[in-house]
Amino acid sequence: MRTGVWLVGARGSVATTSIVGALALRSGLTAPIGCVTELPQVRGPALPSFSDLVFGGHDPVLTPLAKRAEALAAAGVVPGRLVAALADDLAVVEDDIRPAPTGGTPAERVARVVADLADFRRRHDLDRVVVVNVSATEPVVTPHPAHADPAALAAALDGPDEVLPPSSLYAYAAFTADCPYVDFTPSTGARLPALAALAAQRGLPYAGHDGKTGETLVKSVLAPMFAMRNLQVRSWSGINLLGGGDGATLADPAANAAKVESKQRVLGETLGYHPQGDTRIDYVEELGDFKTAWDLVTFAGFLGIGMRLEFTWHGCDSALAAPLVLDLARITAAAHAAGASGPLADLAFFFKDPLDAATHSLGEQWTRLCGFVAGLHAAAGGTDAQAG
Amino acid sequence: MRTGVWLVGARGSVATTSIVGALALRSGLTAPIGCVTELPQVRGPALPSFSDLVFGGHDPVLTPLAKRAEALAAAGVVPGRLVAALADDLAVVEDDIRPAPTGGTPAERVARVVADLADFRRRHDLDRVVVVNVSATEPVVTPHPAHADPAALAAALDGPDEVLPPSSLYAYAAFTADCPYVDFTPSTGARLPALAALAAQRGLPYAGHDGKTGETLVKSVLAPMFAMRNLQVRSWSGINLLGGGDGATLADPAANAAKVESKQRVLGETLGYHPQGDTRIDYVEELGDFKTAWDLVTFAGFLGIGMRLEFTWHGCDSALAAPLVLDLARITAAAHAAGASGPLADLAFFFKDPLDAATHSLGEQWTRLCGFVAGLHAAAGGTDAQAG
Amino acid sequence: MRTGVWLVGARGSVATTSIVGALALRSGLTAPIGCVTELPQVRGPALPSFSDLVFGGHDPVLTPLAKRAEALAAAGVVPGRLVAALADDLAVVEDDIRPAPTGGTPAERVARVVADLADFRRRHDLDRVVVVNVSATEPVVTPHPAHADPAALAAALDGPDEVLPPSSLYAYAAFTADCPYVDFTPSTGARLPALAALAAQRGLPYAGHDGKTGETLVKSVLAPMFAMRNLQVRSWSGINLLGGGDGATLADPAANAAKVESKQRVLGETLGYHPQGDTRIDYVEELGDFKTAWDLVTFAGFLGIGMRLEFTWHGCDSALAAPLVLDLARITAAAHAAGASGPLADLAFFFKDPLDAATHSLGEQWTRLCGFVAGLHAAAGGTDAQAG
Amino acid sequence: MRTGVWLVGARGSVATTSIVGALALRSGLTAPIGCVTELPQVRGPALPSFSDLVFGGHDPVLTPLAKRAEALAAAGVVPGRLVAALADDLAVVEDDIRPAPTGGTPAERVARVVADLADFRRRHDLDRVVVVNVSATEPVVTPHPAHADPAALAAALDGPDEVLPPSSLYAYAAFTADCPYVDFTPSTGARLPALAALAAQRGLPYAGHDGKTGETLVKSVLAPMFAMRNLQVRSWSGINLLGGGDGATLADPAANAAKVESKQRVLGETLGYHPQGDTRIDYVEELGDFKTAWDLVTFAGFLGIGMRLEFTWHGCDSALAAPLVLDLARITAAAHAAGASGPLADLAFFFKDPLDAATHSLGEQWTRLCGFVAGLHAAAGGTDAQAG
Repeated sequence: MRTGVWLVGARGSVATTSIVGALALRSGLTAPIGCVTELPQVRGPALPSFSDLVFGGHDPVLTPLAKRAEALAAAGVVPGRLVAALADDLAVVEDDIRPAPTGGTPAERVARVVADLADFRRRHDLDRVVVVNVSATEPVVTPHPAHADPAALAAALDGPDEVLPPSSLYAYAAFTADCPYVDFTPSTGARLPALAALAAQRGLPYAGHDGKTGETLVKSVLAPMFAMRNLQVRSWSGINLLGGGDGATLADPAANAAKVESKQRVLGETLGYHPQGDTRIDYVEELGDFKTAWDLVTFAGFLGIGMRLEFTWHGCDSALAAPLVLDLARITAAAHAAGASGPLADLAFFFKDPLDAATHSLGEQWTRLCGFVAGLHAAAGGTDAQAG
Repeated sequence: MRTGVWLVGARGSVATTSIVGALALRSGLTAPIGCVTELPQVRGPALPSFSDLVFGGHDPVLTPLAKRAEALAAAGVVPGRLVAALADDLAVVEDDIRPAPTGGTPAERVARVVADLADFRRRHDLDRVVVVNVSATEPVVTPHPAHADPAALAAALDGPDEVLPPSSLYAYAAFTADCPYVDFTPSTGARLPALAALAAQRGLPYAGHDGKTGETLVKSVLAPMFAMRNLQVRSWSGINLLGGGDGATLADPAANAAKVESKQRVLGETLGYHPQGDTRIDYVEELGDFKTAWDLVTFAGFLGIGMRLEFTWHGCDSALAAPLVLDLARITAAAHAAGASGPLADLAFFFKDPLDAATHSLGEQWTRLCGFVAGLHAAAGGTDAQAG
Repeated sequence: MRTGVWLVGARGSVATTSIVGALALRSGLTAPIGCVTELPQVRGPALPSFSDLVFGGHDPVLTPLAKRAEALAAAGVVPGRLVAALADDLAVVEDDIRPAPTGGTPAERVARVVADLADFRRRHDLDRVVVVNVSATEPVVTPHPAHADPAALAAALDGPDEVLPPSSLYAYAAFTADCPYVDFTPSTGARLPALAALAAQRGLPYAGHDGKTGETLVKSVLAPMFAMRNLQVRSWSGINLLGGGDGATLADPAANAAKVESKQRVLGETLGYHPQGDTRIDYVEELGDFKTAWDLVTFAGFLGIGMRLEFTWHGCDSALAAPLVLDLARITAAAHAAGASGPLADLAFFFKDPLDAATHSLGEQWTRLCGFVAGLHAAAGGTDAQAG
Repeated sequence: MRTGVWLVGARGSVATTSIVGALALRSGLTAPIGCVTELPQVRGPALPSFSDLVFGGHDPVLTPLAKRAEALAAAGVVPGRLVAALADDLAVVEDDIRPAPTGGTPAERVARVVADLADFRRRHDLDRVVVVNVSATEPVVTPHPAHADPAALAAALDGPDEVLPPSSLYAYAAFTADCPYVDFTPSTGARLPALAALAAQRGLPYAGHDGKTGETLVKSVLAPMFAMRNLQVRSWSGINLLGGGDGATLADPAANAAKVESKQRVLGETLGYHPQGDTRIDYVEELGDFKTAWDLVTFAGFLGIGMRLEFTWHGCDSALAAPLVLDLARITAAAHAAGASGPLADLAFFFKDPLDAATHSLGEQWTRLCGFVAGLHAAAGGTDAQAG
């Protein structure tokens, strides 16, 4: 099952780490640490193997992928020995990264993306292409009447106005090119009625939003812990310090707002009430691709006695995100192959702000994920063998 | 369903807090924060209400319960206003606390405990009595041939030797008196073949071991998080600083060893491998009944990149334990009423070192607990109404 | 040496804690923990004793002092037993707290404050009165031409405009009434050329700004540590979570800005360069009078190797501030008695943003403080005896 | 002023980092971060420059220095580019590292060390050689009557018994060879009456003990902070998690005891009382050369209100120690040149457990250090120019 993975933001840290990692896994140079799809509970015949994956993508910047990989090695995000060993493989991927279309009407840009996707599929003889958005976080979208239905949207895209933010334009193009779409960012992506309708019309699955890689991952197990023990969370405050590209983007208050809202949701929905406290995101350039998050939780126990929990998370966002990008591409490809359509609510495990999710508890999300993938494997004709 | 709760260590901090809390709940003076059995997913008609509970117990010390409650109020463990308001109710409970039997052969002491239990049941016209061990942690037990079967044990108890540690002697007495037994401590309790056989002969349920109230509670959600994400835990080190009675007990290396081993188990069994690092317990008198635990987890993500998580837990052990003691008494009573016998593996949710547990993941334990209690409610003839 | 301590914001948490504490110390009900003036290196005959201190003040709110003290006891800021034992003494102080003047021109309000101060001095037969501002933090002041010299300022105060913020109006009134002035807040206070000139004309000492009670106290020893070891601080980020009255005030972005700037100064001035990172202040009501600050410092050692230090400070601001308010009143009174005039740069030890300070290093500030006070004691005729 | 630096444990992490760093500084390949002797308050003409330093030493292991440097680069302790650039310089130093003498009587081993030192001085035409012990921590020494005076010691060394631990044998050899001696470890070194007398006879200065590089460094500024503010430290507990060679050594309880005692001393001597709590050292191999220390301080403020401070230190011990080794060699050489003799109490700034130290406060130690070095510069004929 030859599967294309088309990365929007293909030269960014997450994309580069994903590509380096997939190439290293394919060559047996590394173990699949961090890859959920390689756990015994998840792996199986329905998923394309790492060797089945072919990478391409769009990016507005032109720095060669090998240079980006070297920069990540210097920053301690990927091992330098892998970048050196994979130089030839990276050069092959380089040929499939296209400049992000600019200029013209939105419709014209959509057409170019669609053409790039078709060309990619044809040249590599791919069974399908999964489009994954890993580009920088956008500000919250401005509402527009054309967001309501596909016909109005198609008409509006023909005009000169920027009706859609880039993430949604790519989702539109993906659906138009019959590709499933995954949004790993908090941006709007496919979350507009017109795009949902378009995906339904074309029978395409999509997934999102906002990869759950750090502080929110921890929250999604700690908040259920308090809930299951009937402990009353009085306040939950946090600060995220991060450098790197995403940090600079999030220093923009508008993008920050989108991200913070996504981070807070897990608490209210898990606990059933909103504790006091906020989550902050601050840009500290010198931290580079590593992020430090600190959270303080104050809570009441029996008879109202006050207690506290603090945690500090020191993680590398790209290294946490990249294996999930591969997991999402593999599972979404398998879901597409099995005929799934619409939002993949069973993939909530991967996201801070999951589409149509019934729960924010990581444990419950895990149970749903395992069940969903088991269904794909059963449909694919077996659960024992591993395709990868 | 009038239910006796017989506390071994009835004047200790956990027991006193449990009694004050239950009395306050019965009188509507406090909300059931920390009570798992009051959550919508757990409560129901099978459980005795707080008003159905009658307290008694054994303790070697003689300080009046009201004095112990005042000391806990001064230490910030229970609100002083509750202790003042419940003075009369505490005096009533006082009458049901007996001095722990001393002297004579073990069999003679068993006989006195059995007599005290029978007397307690009769005087209060109780449907059943659940014996709950909340006394100080014992050293690891010395093996003895008589531990292997009930007949040999009965014979050995008639001799002068201390064949059983106190926790096991109380379990033996409980079973002899047809009472279910719960061990909230890491001590041996019912964990001997002879006692398991005795419980089976008499058709009695029992539960344990070692209430999961702090650091291990957090571990039991964080360790599954790493496992579900296929992140490789390289080291997990922790230190527990605690004062209070339990702290002084654990300053004894032998008791410490039992507790530490219980704390470590969750990691190996959840992750499938043993990360480096130890858990320490240090006694710091001035911390009183509050405990501070600090843990450092180092782990590898994608491509082996190293990351870290630290947490500090500042909790009041008695306030965390007491509602669970009530939960366990209520559920074990309901299980007994429903005819359950043997180790209650479905109560693993409450314990660091659960009997016959299939999993140490809090989320999976929760699912099992909810299923088990739902079965009790169904058997009790309804799920809508709440007995409490 | 009978000394009046006139508190601007006399019913606030800091003032109330200061008064309760001074009364308790006078009565021998508590030990002088936190009182720098009771250390062997500082105490001596020049300082008024706790028994010499008489309290009064202004406040816009009217809640009785005893009620405020009870609220602080309920919040764990002062021991309830002290509030109960000192009821009569608090009632005496109550009689010396005046409503903050409102309405009329600034000059009219100044006249009323001056009259209140004169009346307080006369009624209690005081040698002097030290005015201490412990009211809520103000926004940064709007510049005004009349701030430049005393004559222009006097003229402007006669008009209807609010030429001065309240803290400066009180400083003006204090100087007019021949009283030394201490500003424990980050507000403008005496920091205007016209007020400095007025103090000089009248030969009055003054001190400030912004009591160093928590995160900045720790910074003022850690930053010199990095400097003395030639370690290069790359980033220093912090967040302060606080409830209580001051927290709510600081939730106002303008007041927050004043405070944050004051907190950052220590780094730049101690290190000689500005590390990356900001200090945040967030209001979390449920934390009450306790504040939690978390700081992350990243630094380079030999050959540029990166390292990290994190700290969490969990302190009670009022309990940290109150003994310093007493220290400042005692030392400023002694300085006034010894004829000191102008800004007391030697009191930098007490402040986040000290007047004319040569250093932000706590150790160097300590050396200067000890030298300054030793001079006062020598002038007062002895160093052996302790006045308190 | 050509100065030899003879490292006992010359192939260990600290020594290797010191050598790589000094070579890099000499070549202008790095900035002197972490070098106290390069601060404006300390540098000056009395100190030998980095170019004046010539390295040699003893080590029982034979791994080439370049290999050790590569291993440190792989572990992130030194930059790989420096190791590559300095290959030739490292080869030169390699020729001056001798196998640690073994076998024979202690006197025979002393003679070989003395011969090696004399040979090193002669071949490189050195003005003096400073011997610095950076070998693994030894257990606490067993008392022996010959420790009391030089003559008895000389006689005993001629016998077969191991009268002295290695660190003291090297101190004896250093003094015999007319070399100043610095002990950077907690081992016994020159701390025996016989060795002190020997140094006095020969007019040699010596310094120690136990480089202050991490948790204790932080303690030595935080403990004075509590003292200066008259805050009452109730408990101070800490845990040090470390891998690397030193970690493995300290896993031995005897060595651990020596180190822990050294770490605790700062508290009692600074505060004037002993707070509750202990310091733990645990070996966690996977942490490598990086160490994580966590400390919890509980303290009382005004009116006895309880508060807390926690800190986590994540440092690279070798990178923290190496520049101090260079500082100590430079200053001790200058002290020797200026005729200083006996224990250099003014170098307490560098040590956890300083010889004859009047204070454990880093700030006061700094003042003494600056004064001492200023005296050396004055004697050397100037303070403006920098020799380095």
